[in-house]
Amino acid sequence: MTPDSPDPKSLVRVERDGQEDFVAVEEPLEIRVDGKPLAVAMRTPGHDEELALGFLYGEGLIDGPRNAGLSEGLAGNVVAVEGPLSREPSARSFYTTSSCGVCGKGAIEEVEVLSEPLPEGPQIDRALLGGLPEQLRQPTFEATGGLHATGLFDPDGEPLCVREDVGRHNAMDKVIGWALSNEALPLHDRVLCVSGRLSFELVQKAAVAGAPVLVGVGAPSSLAIELAKERGLTLCGFAREGSMNVYSGAMRVRDPA
Amino acid sequence: MTPDSPDPKSLVRVERDGQEDFVAVEEPLEIRVDGKPLAVAMRTPGHDEELALGFLYGEGLIDGPRNAGLSEGLAGNVVAVEGPLSREPSARSFYTTSSCGVCGKGAIEEVEVLSEPLPEGPQIDRALLGGLPEQLRQPTFEATGGLHATGLFDPDGEPLCVREDVGRHNAMDKVIGWALSNEALPLHDRVLCVSGRLSFELVQKAAVAGAPVLVGVGAPSSLAIELAKERGLTLCGFAREGSMNVYSGAMRVRDPA
Repeated sequence: MTPDSPDPKSLVRVERDGQEDFVAVEEPLEIRVDGKPLAVAMRTPGHDEELALGFLYGEGLIDGPRNAGLSEGLAGNVVAVEGPLSREPSARSFYTTSSCGVCGKGAIEEVEVLSEPLPEGPQIDRALLGGLPEQLRQPTFEATGGLHATGLFDPDGEPLCVREDVGRHNAMDKVIGWALSNEALPLHDRVLCVSGRLSFELVQKAAVAGAPVLVGVGAPSSLAIELAKERGLTLCGFAREGSMNVYSGAMRVRDPA
Repeated sequence: MTPDSPDPKSLVRVERDGQEDFVAVEEPLEIRVDGKPLAVAMRTPGHDEELALGFLYGEGLIDGPRNAGLSEGLAGNVVAVEGPLSREPSARSFYTTSSCGVCGKGAIEEVEVLSEPLPEGPQIDRALLGGLPEQLRQPTFEATGGLHATGLFDPDGEPLCVREDVGRHNAMDKVIGWALSNEALPLHDRVLCVSGRLSFELVQKAAVAGAPVLVGVGAPSSLAIELAKERGLTLCGFAREGSMNVYSGAMRVRDPA
């Protein structure tokens, strides 16, 4: 799963303190649907079509694969996606937002519309789940120390897809876009693992993609836990070296007898 | 500077693995100007007026203090700011964005319009700057492990304002909003220090607020370094226990003789 060398688009050489070093690349990516600009993400180049598709899927704007291509011009920073959209953008978390839903309850109700019920399983050993973060380290992180990662795993802990990005939401969008393009959605028998903290939006993306288990290296927020409980999603934080905390959906975590 | 106990709005008790624990609160905050919704931030409650003012200032939408008040209803999640705005929102990084500026160069040029030149000074010891992160730990982080922080320091390393939030951009917006309300802008003789990685947007906010030195615990991105160089801002990453890397503006960092 782990490539031998970093994607050359993902990092760049810099000079600091009189020596050579590498940092992760951050550039804007514009997502266009049928020629119309829809969103801009600050992201690390690489797997940009996956990022665009995963973002649109997580927002409920597409419900299946679409053709997508990175532009040659405009510094390679525009992904053109073929429509149609499956619903109109709601502008929920953006400028000129509507005034409804401005509380945790409203935000959670919006996710409910976009996500199907999760399956009862799988059941997975606590030690296996708590050991997943060790498999997230990728060559660009090793070279720069400056990237988040999301990994998709099967119930035996085998990695199926790992993506890196300066933005943690982007890394998950890339993984979900990969799954969408490979007709692997919904992620009913899969586990998602992220390198950082567990925000509301990461739980939202996991729930919409149908993933029943989400593991993170960092702490969950209150709203992340509320949404996980409401959707019946297993949410695990502070995962490290085989141990972790379980905040929701403990029925999928198998403890030692 | 460090309060003795966490702001009760900033954390909440949860049960996990059969025991009691605390997690950081995440809730949406809607920012309204003259009654019109402008943006929604997922944030940790507390210092919400500062967050709103700092956000608007960083986007170049206000150029001085404004009256701002948190609503009593709507779950306390709406801040009403009195106008007028000093320019029309450009919708740069939001839905229905314009198609211009989708490359690093365009993004950097936009910041140039919003920020004045930085002063030549101050000059500060490397060990002092590299030791600032130790002063960022605040009571809600200690209780939850789930928050970012931004601190504003004078050139002697004295903390003037430290703010926590689940969103790292929000923590900096709160500090800049505090400075705006206390007529402490521009931050020409000040240092900003953040607990996480150094993204383009954090350098942008620092530059617009006039801060000549920005220190981070994490790695900088390529675009963060490019913008820092273009604006002449001193950018330091991987700060820890008195040491750090300097990526831009080394003339303000005093090394041991």
